[in-house]
Amino acid sequence: MRVFEYPDKIEWKELIERPEVNQQDLSELVDTVFKNVAKNGDKAIRQYTAQFDGVDLLNPLVPEKELEQSREKISKDLLDAMTQASANIQQFHQSQCTEETMIETMPGVQCYRKSQGIENVGLYIPGGTAPLFSTVLMLGIPAKIAGCKNISLFTPPDRNGLINPAILAAAELVGINKVYKIGGVQAIAAMVFGTNTISKVDKIFGPGNQYVTAAKQEALKYGLSIDMPAGPSELLVIADDTANTDFVAADMLSQAEHGADSQVILLTSSKSVVENVRKAIDQQVQVLPRKGIALKALANSKIVLLKKEDIMPWSNAYAPEHLIINTADNDYYVDNVINAGSVFIGQYTPESAGDYASGTNHTLPTNGFARNYSGVSVDSFVKKITFQKITSEGIKAIGKTIELMAEAEDLQAHKNAVTIRLNTVL
Amino acid sequence: MRVFEYPDKIEWKELIERPEVNQQDLSELVDTVFKNVAKNGDKAIRQYTAQFDGVDLLNPLVPEKELEQSREKISKDLLDAMTQASANIQQFHQSQCTEETMIETMPGVQCYRKSQGIENVGLYIPGGTAPLFSTVLMLGIPAKIAGCKNISLFTPPDRNGLINPAILAAAELVGINKVYKIGGVQAIAAMVFGTNTISKVDKIFGPGNQYVTAAKQEALKYGLSIDMPAGPSELLVIADDTANTDFVAADMLSQAEHGADSQVILLTSSKSVVENVRKAIDQQVQVLPRKGIALKALANSKIVLLKKEDIMPWSNAYAPEHLIINTADNDYYVDNVINAGSVFIGQYTPESAGDYASGTNHTLPTNGFARNYSGVSVDSFVKKITFQKITSEGIKAIGKTIELMAEAEDLQAHKNAVTIRLNTVL
Repeated sequence: MRVFEYPDKIEWKELIERPEVNQQDLSELVDTVFKNVAKNGDKAIRQYTAQFDGVDLLNPLVPEKELEQSREKISKDLLDAMTQASANIQQFHQSQCTEETMIETMPGVQCYRKSQGIENVGLYIPGGTAPLFSTVLMLGIPAKIAGCKNISLFTPPDRNGLINPAILAAAELVGINKVYKIGGVQAIAAMVFGTNTISKVDKIFGPGNQYVTAAKQEALKYGLSIDMPAGPSELLVIADDTANTDFVAADMLSQAEHGADSQVILLTSSKSVVENVRKAIDQQVQVLPRKGIALKALANSKIVLLKKEDIMPWSNAYAPEHLIINTADNDYYVDNVINAGSVFIGQYTPESAGDYASGTNHTLPTNGFARNYSGVSVDSFVKKITFQKITSEGIKAIGKTIELMAEAEDLQAHKNAVTIRLNTVL
Repeated sequence: MRVFEYPDKIEWKELIERPEVNQQDLSELVDTVFKNVAKNGDKAIRQYTAQFDGVDLLNPLVPEKELEQSREKISKDLLDAMTQASANIQQFHQSQCTEETMIETMPGVQCYRKSQGIENVGLYIPGGTAPLFSTVLMLGIPAKIAGCKNISLFTPPDRNGLINPAILAAAELVGINKVYKIGGVQAIAAMVFGTNTISKVDKIFGPGNQYVTAAKQEALKYGLSIDMPAGPSELLVIADDTANTDFVAADMLSQAEHGADSQVILLTSSKSVVENVRKAIDQQVQVLPRKGIALKALANSKIVLLKKEDIMPWSNAYAPEHLIINTADNDYYVDNVINAGSVFIGQYTPESAGDYASGTNHTLPTNGFARNYSGVSVDSFVKKITFQKITSEGIKAIGKTIELMAEAEDLQAHKNAVTIRLNTVL
């Protein structure tokens, strides 16, 4: 890890920059798969699954029985853990539903807003060695709370045509009954166009590799929306002399093990923190199964020594996905958070709590998008529709205002729509 | 207007399709302007303003004095109307701010969410013959309520280098003091890159022509976000025998006058409504100053005769930006709204009320995006940041759950971040 001591403000701009991601242009591949799926539907899906996942599946829909039996295939302990995490996620996300109240802006002019679940949503869960069942909970639970009518989950099968039972158990726990053994670009194409057996969706959620990311971007061109732009995961830790530097090191490593492109940053005013965290990282990383990945991520990571008053401006300029505040003066830092995805306060609050079980969502804005995007919440699964109801008394009260403004914007027919009504009630 | 009588459901798909917009590929032009502004800043802006708006402006920032004096340049009546509209918009949008409550998902595990205004936002207001000052209110008021720190407004100057005083008066009323006389692609480029005199923004709002729309799309590639994808304005009216067909006709014309590409649709179960609305339109359109535009829009518009039970499925499949419900059974239709931007209920509720003054926002999803996007609200100007705080008691309660899940996802360092803490408190 490189250490920067009290960098000049002019250098900040460079220091907060994320490393350039070497993005391959995958648009041609994505376009080919999209066109084939649009034209040949299920047949094209089957062909791509054979080609990319190495298995020929006649029907990619996971049978109900396989879903039901998945619980028995994972340990009782893991099922209990998932159940506890689900309860916490459910509770926190349920609190995000707000009853919108009717506002009478003028006598007889009533306005209100109603949250309506997006009808058809698709959740993508990557395959690979580690089964990301936690993401099933993080996307499925708010989708259910939002009242989305059709929730479909897509995840690639292994070479035996199977899905990890932890993913199926999580889907079953949430109550998602449409799980498709389809991955990659073809999964996104199925969500965009639908097939004879798969319904198309309105919005796509979930992480994925560069192919899935490119396909999600392409989906925007077909009128779908997506959860948020993708980028490598990040953690910024703020620590002072009172922080347990073993905890700080463990938190930084938990981020570093995600991938070689993970970003880890430590901001502190204390030179001893810098030294102790470095030592603790060197020690703790040795026993990690994903040591190789973690070391690569750490090579790109930074420790920045700053004056206390510069710490929050630096953090806000960086806009981290995850922000851990582990100091004797947490309130000061918390009060000054402007840009961050999710904030973890105090020494007993590791990022992994929010990754799995505390109740907050782990689908968060990366790559500086915490400046202008929120993480996933129930809001992500609803549209808020406004309604208004004006009585004859109301149009009398507000009519002249509308007429004057419409006329000043040269929109005579807009004015007429009011005048013609006023003429019947005045 | 073409009339379709009880079309077969198989024909719906074609009927609800929006006409193909003949989109020119403007990416080369946009790219050129972006690169020039990124490199040459203010100088490039000045050059484009001279080229496209025909006026050489040394400093595009509207002086404070010009802003202050704008109120005197519009009629007292219009200023009163704007003030009334502002009060209503303020009241309705203020009600969208929700105090997020702290949720203790387990003893010692506290989670909450806080709305934080996006720091830097840019509002674009088109120029042209009609001054869209109402959009200044619709974007500026929620931005202020959200607590956005820097709000900049961009609008093209006329050939004398002036901005319509109604736009300036609206900005002044809202409290926006940075108004730039810059339009078109160069305005969006200024928001993306900033210049020596203009600060760059995080999110761009506002309508625009095809150039501005293309530039907003391009801005996404630079990490900015935008309010929503653009498309021609639309209205769908549901009317029955009890509706005053003169009102229905006036509402349809108010939409049709927006532009030749505006979409107007009438759904009804009543043949007499069809006849009477057509007659009323023919009559009312004659006196409109924008008759030519309205007639072009009407040529693309549709009246669809449907069984009552088919009306809401049709409307939801179309997902209109504006939906007027003018029947004897309004509650039934309202209860079945799934996809719509803003809904106007009852005979005295013209769309123009929401366009200007009732309190709801007029920046709404078009082109079927009401399926998966909300209109602009205070939400559009904030990020919702999650916070969590776990005590030693809390980590004892939740620790094992996190450890089990992290281990099952093969993320050992995620587990360690908990274990290392548990070891100090158990």
